[in-house]
Amino acid sequence: MTFSWPVRVYWEDTDAGGIVFYANYLKFFERARTEWLRALGHGQQQLKTTLGAMFVVTDARLRYLRPARLDNELLITAALAEHSRASITVQQQALLAPGSAGAPPTVLVEASIRIGWVDAQTLRPQRIPPTLLQQLHP
Amino acid sequence: MTFSWPVRVYWEDTDAGGIVFYANYLKFFERARTEWLRALGHGQQQLKTTLGAMFVVTDARLRYLRPARLDNELLITAALAEHSRASITVQQQALLAPGSAGAPPTVLVEASIRIGWVDAQTLRPQRIPPTLLQQLHP
Amino acid sequence: MTFSWPVRVYWEDTDAGGIVFYANYLKFFERARTEWLRALGHGQQQLKTTLGAMFVVTDARLRYLRPARLDNELLITAALAEHSRASITVQQQALLAPGSAGAPPTVLVEASIRIGWVDAQTLRPQRIPPTLLQQLHP
Amino acid sequence: MTFSWPVRVYWEDTDAGGIVFYANYLKFFERARTEWLRALGHGQQQLKTTLGAMFVVTDARLRYLRPARLDNELLITAALAEHSRASITVQQQALLAPGSAGAPPTVLVEASIRIGWVDAQTLRPQRIPPTLLQQLHP
Repeated sequence: MTFSWPVRVYWEDTDAGGIVFYANYLKFFERARTEWLRALGHGQQQLKTTLGAMFVVTDARLRYLRPARLDNELLITAALAEHSRASITVQQQALLAPGSAGAPPTVLVEASIRIGWVDAQTLRPQRIPPTLLQQLHP
Repeated sequence: MTFSWPVRVYWEDTDAGGIVFYANYLKFFERARTEWLRALGHGQQQLKTTLGAMFVVTDARLRYLRPARLDNELLITAALAEHSRASITVQQQALLAPGSAGAPPTVLVEASIRIGWVDAQTLRPQRIPPTLLQQLHP
Repeated sequence: MTFSWPVRVYWEDTDAGGIVFYANYLKFFERARTEWLRALGHGQQQLKTTLGAMFVVTDARLRYLRPARLDNELLITAALAEHSRASITVQQQALLAPGSAGAPPTVLVEASIRIGWVDAQTLRPQRIPPTLLQQLHP
Repeated sequence: MTFSWPVRVYWEDTDAGGIVFYANYLKFFERARTEWLRALGHGQQQLKTTLGAMFVVTDARLRYLRPARLDNELLITAALAEHSRASITVQQQALLAPGSAGAPPTVLVEASIRIGWVDAQTLRPQRIPPTLLQQLHP
């Protein structure tokens, strides 16, 4: 299952080229991942407190296909693509919501984000709790 | 009437002090003003195109009373405080939504934002269209 | 004496209006204050560790006079304007370095930033160490 | 030859985890690429005006190895890794300047940024001017 989260483009997100600044998609993707976890019942502070561990991004790959502009309404998706014992890879997209009903959304940016599960103190890789992994599964 | 807009605090908004970085409230206030105009039927690009004029911030005053933290859900308000022929002053607050029902929200930051209405080409002050002003009125 | 610090305008600082986004001047002003303290021999982490106290912004007033654009080279100034036992007010400017030698710099933004000195744990106002205050003095 | 550009970590760059927020490295990498072009005598606005074309990022790959913290002084590098007729790939690193003389710098983040050269109006790929390409070459 793919989680999706709406993001509106404000002045703060754009640059002098009139489009969303390339770094800001990493903000949008992080918001969607946070809301995905929240929708599954997990706050990141709460995971840290109760399990003594947290997610940290280790790799990010982004493909910029088309620009987004001021006032655009985007949909940011997140879905588990693969996982190992101590890390997950999340597939994400920034989609432009279609102007007319029935039209498919346009893919603006595609991303693959690899995230490790680490001890909050030592930052050493930890085994992801199976119940957490199961919740993230398609 | 006071317009209000919800804002969630994400990692991107915080700093190493564990709280929302002081500049980011100006982002939150801008989002609320944009959504206020949108709720009244005005896009900023559309105002620029149809009227050849736009709003530009000329003064900002902020009072930081209490910090906001990761995952906090804020309400950002906007209301017309005063106006002249060519400018408006918007009173804004960042409120922390109360944890328990019935409790009043906590004021975190108060702001007074003065905004001029200028010709989009020359940036010279223009008279604000009376119908636009009337819409913003309490 | 007025401290000044150069800041270059990059894509990240601008918005779709082609100018520096209004919140980003608070970043520039913070950089200059940090470098001012550093020039006086004080890191903010070190103050926190050795004195158990820190500076927090309580009020910010900004006047936006002229816009800055991509690639502009700015000078950000900082000078002590006034002080009480537990707070200082820093006067700051964002100046556009003149294109031709001999021309005076253009003031783009003026700011007055009030900063409290607080206990790092309780966030209660503390008396600013006299030696620190003396260093900040004109 | 590898170009390098110093970047200081300020409050604005950090998040509540006490480290530099992952999106902000894309800002640092952009600053270094801009300064690299500037050192070669090219402003991005000037390229757009004189050649009617510009660079746009099409792919970004980042590997986050170690975190940077407040007050850290980083070196951001940029070097041409490969190129085709209409695009270049820039290899970049964020390095932590060593505390003691003689010690090698620590690699914090590695990035590979693919950048297309496009017509400023149509955004269609264009052949990179050979003289420009030659300047970027090792």
